[in-house]
Amino acid sequence: MRRIRITLAYDGTDFHGWQAQPGLPTVQGTVEAAFAEIEGRAVPVAASGRTDAGVHALAQVAAVSLENPIPLPNLRRALNRLLPPSIRILEVEEAEPDFHPRYQAAAKHYEYRVWRSEVCPPFDWRYVHHHPYPLDTERMLALAPLLEGENDFTAFAASDESDRLGGSKVRTIFSSRLALEAEKLVYRVCGSGFLKHMVRNIAGTLLEAGKGNLDAGGLRELLRPGCGRKAGPAAPAKGLFLIRVEYGAGPRVAGTSECSEGPES
Amino acid sequence: MRRIRITLAYDGTDFHGWQAQPGLPTVQGTVEAAFAEIEGRAVPVAASGRTDAGVHALAQVAAVSLENPIPLPNLRRALNRLLPPSIRILEVEEAEPDFHPRYQAAAKHYEYRVWRSEVCPPFDWRYVHHHPYPLDTERMLALAPLLEGENDFTAFAASDESDRLGGSKVRTIFSSRLALEAEKLVYRVCGSGFLKHMVRNIAGTLLEAGKGNLDAGGLRELLRPGCGRKAGPAAPAKGLFLIRVEYGAGPRVAGTSECSEGPES
Repeated sequence: MRRIRITLAYDGTDFHGWQAQPGLPTVQGTVEAAFAEIEGRAVPVAASGRTDAGVHALAQVAAVSLENPIPLPNLRRALNRLLPPSIRILEVEEAEPDFHPRYQAAAKHYEYRVWRSEVCPPFDWRYVHHHPYPLDTERMLALAPLLEGENDFTAFAASDESDRLGGSKVRTIFSSRLALEAEKLVYRVCGSGFLKHMVRNIAGTLLEAGKGNLDAGGLRELLRPGCGRKAGPAAPAKGLFLIRVEYGAGPRVAGTSECSEGPES
Repeated sequence: MRRIRITLAYDGTDFHGWQAQPGLPTVQGTVEAAFAEIEGRAVPVAASGRTDAGVHALAQVAAVSLENPIPLPNLRRALNRLLPPSIRILEVEEAEPDFHPRYQAAAKHYEYRVWRSEVCPPFDWRYVHHHPYPLDTERMLALAPLLEGENDFTAFAASDESDRLGGSKVRTIFSSRLALEAEKLVYRVCGSGFLKHMVRNIAGTLLEAGKGNLDAGGLRELLRPGCGRKAGPAAPAKGLFLIRVEYGAGPRVAGTSECSEGPES
């Protein structure tokens, strides 16, 4: 049995998220169907994490176990022939037999994109949250780094977040920065792991700050354990991209530096 | 009656081209429906030229005559609210009463995009022709400028091209250049006017040259009046973009310089 590590990109627009659901188009379901075709039987594909309906990925990482001895370049070609153009296999590699893309992930990078000007180009609307209304971007830029470090993100979790990791909602964010790039406001975050809806809730909270509904004190209060309030609302899924997943890095010190440079995303 | 000049961008993927056709989604039909909503009656919208099914536009120019005195910024906003996100009105301006976007166009710029590497990203496949197979790009780069100047493009016209301009298929190309840009091969052409399918036939002919099926002599032969042969085949529509349309420029001298810099496309 071979363990194969896959790096894939997808346009989440037409999928009900990563996780397979009966009767609905999902990324996992579609990728598993392609592998089933190659392997001749159903094979489970595990990812570094689920992405919500409508969320995109530039370099999601997944893994699968195969009997088929097909050479890697042929496997990639076969998969891309079987998959729709909205899902592309970028890389396939042999991995350690125990490789698990979720449990072994050292860091994940996300990007949230907001289109600022009045007209959103017809080629971009699927990939940005269009918000052409006034925002105090200076305040947003100043607040974004306050999320760096180890914090209790209970206020930023989806209300139905299951209690993984013994129920702890403490997570470490290595880097949390906002940038104004031409007509886009781009929020980039890198952390050890994220709760369900956490990045969209952070993006939505920064937007609330931009609208004048939250300041640094309010944000710090949301990060205080047991604060009892909810952050957000969640920013729309279509502005969110999983950019890349890092493996095998040593422990990091939060807030001391930008996330390390990794492979091209 | 006001004459309004419109600059619009569209993703041609889901449209049966510019020209209105009963029962089919077209760009013209969709834009005319939005104007009819604003004006309270049917109003014809004329463009600088038709684009084929699947062809995109970064800055098509069109014109419409309205009674409605709505201020221009409100008109743009109202149109963009009525239109699907795949069509965006970039600019609306008051124009001379006799402004006609087709008859008064001085030059049109097109771009044809070919994706070269094996995997075409899920965010780009609608906007490129994916051709990851070997091509003699040096030859293609060398041949592209041979199309500059005044030539008989009969060999590059669609077989059903109607005989406009007294039947002449002579056109002037001011600039015809190919560039290799990272994983894309981009053909840029600027000319006084183009026959139906002409740019796609030129792109298809350059691809034939890249495959080794045509050399400089063969290309010159296709441009010889009365050669009787057909160029092409036409490259797929989805790689083609109408980039911008120029008005009011004086006469140009073919082949002596790059096309003038115009407004941002």
